[in-house]
Amino acid sequence: MNFMWTELEALAVETRRRDMAGLFRDEARAETFSLTHDGLLFDFSKTQIDGPIRRALLDLARQSGVEDKRAAMFRGDKINETEGRAVLHTASRALVSAPTASEIQVDGQDVMAQGRETYARMVAFCSDVRSGNWPEAGPKVTDVVNIGIGGSDLGPVMAYRALAPYVDGPRCHFVSNVDGADIHDTLKGLDPETTLVIVSSKSFGTQETLMNARTALRWMQAGSDSAMDRFVAISTSRERTEAFGIAPERVFGFGSWIGGRYSVWSPIGLSLMLAIGPDNAAEFLRGGHAMDRHFTDAPLDRNMPVLLALVGLWHQKFCGYATRAVVPYEHRLSRLPAYLQQLEMESNGKSVALDGSPLAHGGGPVVWGEPGTNGQHAFFQLIHQGSDVVPVEFLVGANGHEPELRDHHEALLANCLAQSEALLKGRTFEEARNQLIAQGKQGDNLDALARHRVFPGNRPSTTLVYEKLTPYVLGQIIALYEHRVFVEGVILGLNSFDQWGVELGKELADGLVPAIAKGQAPKGANGSTKMLLAHLVGLANSQG
Amino acid sequence: MNFMWTELEALAVETRRRDMAGLFRDEARAETFSLTHDGLLFDFSKTQIDGPIRRALLDLARQSGVEDKRAAMFRGDKINETEGRAVLHTASRALVSAPTASEIQVDGQDVMAQGRETYARMVAFCSDVRSGNWPEAGPKVTDVVNIGIGGSDLGPVMAYRALAPYVDGPRCHFVSNVDGADIHDTLKGLDPETTLVIVSSKSFGTQETLMNARTALRWMQAGSDSAMDRFVAISTSRERTEAFGIAPERVFGFGSWIGGRYSVWSPIGLSLMLAIGPDNAAEFLRGGHAMDRHFTDAPLDRNMPVLLALVGLWHQKFCGYATRAVVPYEHRLSRLPAYLQQLEMESNGKSVALDGSPLAHGGGPVVWGEPGTNGQHAFFQLIHQGSDVVPVEFLVGANGHEPELRDHHEALLANCLAQSEALLKGRTFEEARNQLIAQGKQGDNLDALARHRVFPGNRPSTTLVYEKLTPYVLGQIIALYEHRVFVEGVILGLNSFDQWGVELGKELADGLVPAIAKGQAPKGANGSTKMLLAHLVGLANSQG
Repeated sequence: MNFMWTELEALAVETRRRDMAGLFRDEARAETFSLTHDGLLFDFSKTQIDGPIRRALLDLARQSGVEDKRAAMFRGDKINETEGRAVLHTASRALVSAPTASEIQVDGQDVMAQGRETYARMVAFCSDVRSGNWPEAGPKVTDVVNIGIGGSDLGPVMAYRALAPYVDGPRCHFVSNVDGADIHDTLKGLDPETTLVIVSSKSFGTQETLMNARTALRWMQAGSDSAMDRFVAISTSRERTEAFGIAPERVFGFGSWIGGRYSVWSPIGLSLMLAIGPDNAAEFLRGGHAMDRHFTDAPLDRNMPVLLALVGLWHQKFCGYATRAVVPYEHRLSRLPAYLQQLEMESNGKSVALDGSPLAHGGGPVVWGEPGTNGQHAFFQLIHQGSDVVPVEFLVGANGHEPELRDHHEALLANCLAQSEALLKGRTFEEARNQLIAQGKQGDNLDALARHRVFPGNRPSTTLVYEKLTPYVLGQIIALYEHRVFVEGVILGLNSFDQWGVELGKELADGLVPAIAKGQAPKGANGSTKMLLAHLVGLANSQG
Repeated sequence: MNFMWTELEALAVETRRRDMAGLFRDEARAETFSLTHDGLLFDFSKTQIDGPIRRALLDLARQSGVEDKRAAMFRGDKINETEGRAVLHTASRALVSAPTASEIQVDGQDVMAQGRETYARMVAFCSDVRSGNWPEAGPKVTDVVNIGIGGSDLGPVMAYRALAPYVDGPRCHFVSNVDGADIHDTLKGLDPETTLVIVSSKSFGTQETLMNARTALRWMQAGSDSAMDRFVAISTSRERTEAFGIAPERVFGFGSWIGGRYSVWSPIGLSLMLAIGPDNAAEFLRGGHAMDRHFTDAPLDRNMPVLLALVGLWHQKFCGYATRAVVPYEHRLSRLPAYLQQLEMESNGKSVALDGSPLAHGGGPVVWGEPGTNGQHAFFQLIHQGSDVVPVEFLVGANGHEPELRDHHEALLANCLAQSEALLKGRTFEEARNQLIAQGKQGDNLDALARHRVFPGNRPSTTLVYEKLTPYVLGQIIALYEHRVFVEGVILGLNSFDQWGVELGKELADGLVPAIAKGQAPKGANGSTKMLLAHLVGLANSQG
C-alpha cells in the first residue's frame, strides 16, 4: 500500500500543472474515462486522471483489500469492529428486490426475516393511513410530523424533497433541532386532530428528539382526546417506547446492523413511505439494491462506487485539495449536500485506523455544496478564481418532471455543462485582453482589468448523469455515495461505521444543562465557558 | 506588510501545538480576549491568540491600510475599482437611523436623497398591501413570491426565516433556480388572485429570473384577469421593466453603489418588509447602521468586525486551516451559512490583487455550516476527530421567542457551550481508557478501543452571543459579517466587491442553450462536454 501511495504522489507531482484540456486530443478520452451503468453515466474525464494514474489508483484499491472488505460487509461480518456490529443496511434493500435472497445471520438473528416482517407491517400501516382506514376513529391523517435528528432526519427530509412529484399521501414535516423554534414553527400551521407524529430515535434516548416529542404530545393533547393514539415510534427500545406511552403495534424497530446515517432504507423512512406510497418506496429500495449488485459484481475498473471513491482520493490525498463540493443541478436535491455531509464526514472524519494507531494518510475531506444554478450566483466565484482548488461533483438529470417547462430544463442543462467546461478551459490573459479590446476598452489599466478576468482553468470536476430523478434513481444515487464512502474508508484504513467523535460533546452537555438552569458553570469548565454561561444566564434573567 | 506576515508565521509555528486550555491559567483570559458592544459579546479566547499575536494582527491590519480604506468606503470613493463603482450599501442603513446624515454624492447623484425617496415609496406600498388597500380592486394579497437569484434571493430568504416571529403580513415564497421544479412546486399551492410577484433583478437581464418571471406570469394570467397588475420589479432598468409590462410606479430601483450580495438592505428586501412590516424592517436597518458606526468609530483593538476578520485570517493564513464552519445555535438562522457562502466566497474568493498582480498570500477560505444542534449529529464527528482542523464560529442567543419552551432553550445553550468546551479540552488516552475501565471493559483490545475515543482537543472556535434574534440584532450580525469580509479583503489586498469569476460560465451557457435545443455541441467544446451533451439530449429524446 505504501508503495502505491508513493507512486501516486509522484504521478500527482508530474501531472498537477499539465494542461487538462490538452488531454482531450485523445478523442476517445471522454469514453475511456467515464462509465455507464443501468441508466447512469459517470464522467470523470475532466480531471488529470490518465491511464497510468487510473491503473495505480485501482492497484491501491486492490492492495487495500477493498474486495475482501466488501465481501465481509455483505456477508454480515462485524466490520464495525469498535462497536462489534455487522453493517447490513444493504439487507433492507434486498428485502424488496430479492425476496428469495439467501438468509443472513447475525448473532443468531435472521436479518432478512426480521426485516421482512417489519417491512410488511410498515406497508400495511402506510396503506391504512393513506386510504383513511387508520385511525379507526377520527378523521384522515393530512399531515405527518417526523421528529428525529441526524440520520433520523437528514435521509427522510432529503428523499421527501427529492421525490416531491411522487407525493400523493399526507404532507410531511420534519422537526430536528432542540431549539424550540423548530417545533413551534412546524406545529403552528397544523391541526392536532389530523396530524400523525413519528418519533424516530433508535435508542429512544436522543435528548433533542425526546424533548420535541414531549412538546408535540402536550400540543396534541391540548387539541385532541386521542393524542397518544396518533404517536408512532421508530425505535428498538420496547421498554422506553412503552414508558412514553406508545403501544407496541405502533412501534417499528430495526437491527443493530443498520447505522443511523444509513437508515433511510429502514423504518426511519416511514414518513417517506406515507408520503409517496409503498410502491414508490419499494422502487427507491430497488434502486439501492441494483447499485449494491453492481458494486458487488462489477470488476473494480468498471465499478462506479469504486471509481467515484478513487477520484475523491486522488483529489484529496494526492492533489491536496482539502474539500469537495457537491452541486446537484436538480433543485429538489437541495438537501443532498447536507445529507452527504453526514454520510461522508461522520463516516470518514477520523484520525485513527481500525487498530487505534494514527492514520498514515489522514481521514476524509470536508464536503459542502448547494444546488445549481444557485451556486453559480453565490460561491462559484471562489471555485473559478479562488486561490484554492475545489473539485466539483455535478449531478444532473436529462429530464425534469415538468415537460411543459422544457425551456427551463434546457437552460439548466446548458448551465451545468457550461460550468464544468469553464472550470476545465479557463480564460487566458490574451483572451481576456482581446475581449476587452473588442468591447472598446483601452487605456492604461487595460492589462490590469484583463488580469481580473483571467480564469486559471485546469480545475477538475465530475458529472453524474441520470435520466430523471425517479425513486429508483434516487436509490441508485444514495447507494452509490454510500459505497463510495465505504471504499474511501477501506483505503484510508479507518472504520466508516462508528462515530466516537460525537460522545464528548454529549457528555459535557449533560453536565451543562443543570449548570445553565442554576446559572453556575460546572467545576473544571474553562474561563471562556464560565464567562459565556454567566453572560447568557444574565441576559436570560434580565429579560425574565 | 510582509514583515508582519513573516512575524505572524513565526508566531503560528511557535504556538501551534501549545496547550490551549493551559492559556486559561490566566484567569482574565476570557475577558481579555473577548469584546462586548451594544448587546453583543464576541469571545475569541478559545483560540491560540495571545497578547503578542493580537498585537501583530492589529499591526498587520493597520499597515494594510484598513482605516484609510474604511474611510474611503464610507465617503463614497470608488473602491470597487474594477467596476468603477462606489460601495455604499451602508447608506441604505443610514437612511432610517440617521435621517440628517451628511449627504454623499456619487457621480453627481445624491445617494441619500435617492435612497430616501425609494424607501418612502416602499413603506407606502408595503403599508397598502398589508392593510389591503392595494390592489385597489380585488382581494387582499395573502402570498408574495420573490423571484430572484444570488443576492436577490439569499438575503431575503435568510432574513425572512430568521425573523419568522415578526411575520404578520403575507407569507413569502422564494423562487431562484432555473430548474422548473422550483417555480412549479412553489406556485402549486398558491392562488393567482391573491398572489403578488416580485421580480428582483438589478439589470432585469438575469436569465434564471426572467425565465421564472415569464412562467409565473403565464400561470397568473391563466387564473386572473389582472395578472400584470400584481407584478412588481426591483430593478434599475426602466426600459426592460417597461418592456416586460410592469408600470413604473411598481418598479423600485437602487444605485450602482449597492452590490448584489450587499443588497438585502435595499429594495431587494421588499418581500421582508411586506412580511414583517416597515417598523420591523426599519429596526433591521438600524441594527446594521449601529454596527457601521461601531466599525467606523471604535479603535481597531476594540472593533468587532476587525477582530472577527483577524481571527479568520489567523486561522486560514497562519495556522493553515483551509475552511471555516459557521454554526448558529438558532434554528431560524438555518440559511445564514448559505448567505455567508455568497458574502464571503464571492467577495474574497479571488487570486489577484487590485492591480491585477497575483495575491501574495492567496484569497479567502471556503465557508460552510448548518445550524446546531443539528450539525452535532452530522459533521461534528470530523470537526472533533477528523485529521483537518476546522475552526468553528458559534452564534447563540440567550433567549428564544418561546418562553414556554425555556427547557428547549436551556438544552440548546448547554449544547452550544459543550461543543466549544469539548473542542478545546479534548479527551486524553488515559481519560478514555479509565472511562472504559469504569464501564467494565477489559481485555486485549482495551487500549485500541480507548484510542478511538481520544479527542485531540486544542481546536479553536469563537462564540458570538446576543440577547435574542430581533430584527435589530439580525441587522447587527449581518453588518458585522459584511465588514469582516471587507477587512479580510483589504488585508489580503483584493477587491471584495467585484465578481469576474462568474462571467465565463455565463458566456459558455449562452452558447450551450441553443446547442442543447439542437442536440449538437458548439464548436470548440471538449470531448467530455460533447459526450455529456449527446447523452443528455439522447435521453431527453428517448423519453419525448
